[in-house]
Amino acid sequence: MKLVTFDQGRIGIVDGERVIDVTDLAGAEPGAWPPVGMVRLIAGWHTHGPALRDALTRREGGPISRPLAGVHLEAPVQWPNKVIAFPANYHAHIDEMKHGAGSGVISTYKASGQGFFLKANSSLSGPADDIVLPPLVGREIHHECELGIVIGKRGRGASRAEARDYVFGFTCLLDMVVRGKEERVMRKSFDTFCPTGPWITTADEIADFGDIGMRLFVNGEERQSASTRNLIVDIPEMIAMSSAVMTLEPGDIIASGTPAGVGPVEDGDVLEIVIDGIGSMKLAVRQGELGAHAVWDEAKAGLAV
Amino acid sequence: MKLVTFDQGRIGIVDGERVIDVTDLAGAEPGAWPPVGMVRLIAGWHTHGPALRDALTRREGGPISRPLAGVHLEAPVQWPNKVIAFPANYHAHIDEMKHGAGSGVISTYKASGQGFFLKANSSLSGPADDIVLPPLVGREIHHECELGIVIGKRGRGASRAEARDYVFGFTCLLDMVVRGKEERVMRKSFDTFCPTGPWITTADEIADFGDIGMRLFVNGEERQSASTRNLIVDIPEMIAMSSAVMTLEPGDIIASGTPAGVGPVEDGDVLEIVIDGIGSMKLAVRQGELGAHAVWDEAKAGLAV
Repeated sequence: MKLVTFDQGRIGIVDGERVIDVTDLAGAEPGAWPPVGMVRLIAGWHTHGPALRDALTRREGGPISRPLAGVHLEAPVQWPNKVIAFPANYHAHIDEMKHGAGSGVISTYKASGQGFFLKANSSLSGPADDIVLPPLVGREIHHECELGIVIGKRGRGASRAEARDYVFGFTCLLDMVVRGKEERVMRKSFDTFCPTGPWITTADEIADFGDIGMRLFVNGEERQSASTRNLIVDIPEMIAMSSAVMTLEPGDIIASGTPAGVGPVEDGDVLEIVIDGIGSMKLAVRQGELGAHAVWDEAKAGLAV
Repeated sequence: MKLVTFDQGRIGIVDGERVIDVTDLAGAEPGAWPPVGMVRLIAGWHTHGPALRDALTRREGGPISRPLAGVHLEAPVQWPNKVIAFPANYHAHIDEMKHGAGSGVISTYKASGQGFFLKANSSLSGPADDIVLPPLVGREIHHECELGIVIGKRGRGASRAEARDYVFGFTCLLDMVVRGKEERVMRKSFDTFCPTGPWITTADEIADFGDIGMRLFVNGEERQSASTRNLIVDIPEMIAMSSAVMTLEPGDIIASGTPAGVGPVEDGDVLEIVIDGIGSMKLAVRQGELGAHAVWDEAKAGLAV
């Protein structure tokens, strides 16, 4: 099943080129703040799921469907408990970062020994939203193509064997980042720096979590290509490691790390992310006006070190 | 006004030794999930605030009050959009970290050039909750005494001059941390590693944001003492810097950094944090069973570097 959030918090199921509006069945409240409709739906999936599957098969007297092209898709999950991210999780990406890729900072970490960080919920954006670049003079802003894992179950201390039960589904995710020496979290948490979507594909549609292929194109040219079989910390271990530290909540998102091929983006670029069996989305990049602050100048001048 | 969350999401105003139950006036839904009652109340403060102030003065026919000692206080804000934290924000603490304070890692960053990071929402705990230590062999877990700033207004790109309008109130906050080389976010995001409370004191009760004194005691002995006048990045600048990057949301929490005097805590310790004009809370520390994972072993063995 492919679940979307659209038109200010409505919930839908994608059915080919149409979307079935299941807002009422899902118990969501369009326009409510904070926007936790999808998080609630995931938490109550044991009761909502069967009703939604039924809605997919019924036509007469069932919920209204409308053309997918006629709705405004939003970030599927907008206000999770947290967005967890695993840096340095593909060997080939670690190799390119050893050479400083755009930052002048040589990194030799890897996720198995370094662990995870967080991106701000407020950086989440959807498939119809532009990626907006802050005006930081002399800085490169890079695309990182990632698989987003959506957690379906509350819990702490999950073992590798239990991990699959925690996966509600998957989504495409871009982990945008300003290269530099400042806190990684700050460099990765600008508004629109975590595009997700176009929907959540539920886990039952993915036979093998250990071999999900993904590609990223910049202006039509392939730049990143990888499979989850190349992960250093694989999906069960990401869940085991993060749940060792923190209670995972339904709706939590894990950004699973990027493979080699990261590079700078500029005003006017179009990024396309494609994940096999999950979905794809095209995102426009444009220059914004907000984001400058002295913290970026000081680090550049070396005062931060 | 001092606002508390208690008894599974009820909202109250502290009135001396009693708490006035304003759950209905605040439009909160006890037991609802996710627990966003206080976040909603803060966002709607322009309408809720006057009704709550009125409840404080009415006695006859007003809402029920009960002894503060008879309710279970919870983290005042439980599911914000984000918990922002400023490391290395007092010169004297930077000096002690230069000498490695328990980690063997020498840090020479400061917040003005390094920026902020995030703590997980799931690390938030309340004044009645123990701080639970993960069983990490050979690791020190330190207390960091901090002022928590609660944001009251949505916005991006706030100037220093506008910053005061973004402050809804203040709370006591402990930023617990495992010392080591792994991602700072992971070391600071264990469940119960962000005790907050005992309430939110609204900003109107604090005349000068630039001189708020705070102290931390371990088993009755003073270990940390500071004032916001010693901050490197002050309160207006923390709001300007974080809102340059991210849209701030009502209910967001900023942990403003810790002064000198951090140190290890152990099973059985009692921590007391006191912030002038805001409140105080005593927290028990106990050893827990969850939290071990190979990621902590690898880093210790130097494999992460």
